[in-house]
Amino acid sequence: MRTILLILEYDGSHFAGWQLQPNGRSVQEVVEGGLAELLREPVRVHAAGRTDAGVHARAMPAHFTTCRDLPLRAFRDGLNRLLPADVAVREAFEVAADFHARFQAQGKWYRYTVDRRSVRSPLDSRSSWQVRGALDLGAMRTAADLLVGEHDFGAFRSSGCTARTTVRRLDTVELTELGELLFIDFHGSGFLRNMVRMLVGTLVDIGRGKRSPASISQLLERQPGLRSGPTAPPQGLCLMSVRYPEPFQKSV
Amino acid sequence: MRTILLILEYDGSHFAGWQLQPNGRSVQEVVEGGLAELLREPVRVHAAGRTDAGVHARAMPAHFTTCRDLPLRAFRDGLNRLLPADVAVREAFEVAADFHARFQAQGKWYRYTVDRRSVRSPLDSRSSWQVRGALDLGAMRTAADLLVGEHDFGAFRSSGCTARTTVRRLDTVELTELGELLFIDFHGSGFLRNMVRMLVGTLVDIGRGKRSPASISQLLERQPGLRSGPTAPPQGLCLMSVRYPEPFQKSV
Repeated sequence: MRTILLILEYDGSHFAGWQLQPNGRSVQEVVEGGLAELLREPVRVHAAGRTDAGVHARAMPAHFTTCRDLPLRAFRDGLNRLLPADVAVREAFEVAADFHARFQAQGKWYRYTVDRRSVRSPLDSRSSWQVRGALDLGAMRTAADLLVGEHDFGAFRSSGCTARTTVRRLDTVELTELGELLFIDFHGSGFLRNMVRMLVGTLVDIGRGKRSPASISQLLERQPGLRSGPTAPPQGLCLMSVRYPEPFQKSV
Repeated sequence: MRTILLILEYDGSHFAGWQLQPNGRSVQEVVEGGLAELLREPVRVHAAGRTDAGVHARAMPAHFTTCRDLPLRAFRDGLNRLLPADVAVREAFEVAADFHARFQAQGKWYRYTVDRRSVRSPLDSRSSWQVRGALDLGAMRTAADLLVGEHDFGAFRSSGCTARTTVRRLDTVELTELGELLFIDFHGSGFLRNMVRMLVGTLVDIGRGKRSPASISQLLERQPGLRSGPTAPPQGLCLMSVRYPEPFQKSV
């Protein structure tokens, strides 16, 4: 039995998210379908996490096991020929038999893209949230610094979140401007459901002067009656990479 | 009579190019349709140039004349509500009555994006040309430098080009790396049909070692029997901006 780790890139625009859905096209379904065709056996794929409908990934790790003796290259180049245009395998590794893409993940990097132009952008709208009006980046950076560290992020999760504990560690939260675009990068140990999008909605409220940077501390202290900002829309979010304890040995 | 200049952004993926087509959806048709709905009169729009099927634009200038007394803002925000998601007005200006978007253009900036990854990218494939294998950027930059200046670019135009003279001036040709992406930026006085894409195909041939940088000089000297490299595919090309003699006075 071999355990294979795929690093997947996908455009989430036309997916109902990573996870299998009773109704709706999911990345998992498409990848499992391609693998079943390649291997001529049913395959279950385990991702490092879930992404919601419309969320993109530059590098989503997902592993599966198989007894088939295909060369590693087939899991990248062969599988890419079977997958639709909006999902592709970037790399394929053979990993230890007990490797698990989700349980062994040590950290994740998410990028959220805000477009500050006053009119909609046909070229950027698939991958950004258009926010009209000036944003106070100084206030947003002050708030971002307050998020760094180990905190109870329970105020930043959607109602469907089933995590047992809401304590997570954010290593860095950084804002970078590229012309009219604003990137907000989150590096952390793990993320609750919708946590990044709710953090972004709150940071944008702070940038608009609707709330103070200090309200972040109050939210992290779980002050009663205090609610986070809105959940930013999905198309601005992209899973950039996931970190594991050790480098992978064999790859295509 | 007022002359209005629109600065248009579009994703060329689902357009048969700028120009009206007997069969096929063109940007011109869509913009003229939106304006006709807004103004309740037929409108002819004149762009700074044409883009081919699949080519994108960040800022394509196009002007039209009208007697209607709408506020300038209607030509941006009002028109944007009538246009489909893949085309939008970024800015609207009122310009001199004799302004012409094509005849008064002094220079253009085109960007071509090459993706050097070994596997296809779902997130970048709409806006780049995937070129596998190493590219010798030093050789490509040497060749790019030879293109700068006033030259006969007749070796770099497609058979359908109807320009009377094939002499054009390139002000700069610059290569910039951003991760696996390679941007090739052309600033010039004007461009023949398919010129940028044929220049890019030739530069990539040089980067692959298929021809020497000096072959650029031979092509510019129109040595008989010598042909340019292949025409690079359209989706990597984007019209970034067009330069005019004077700043525009009134804008939204």
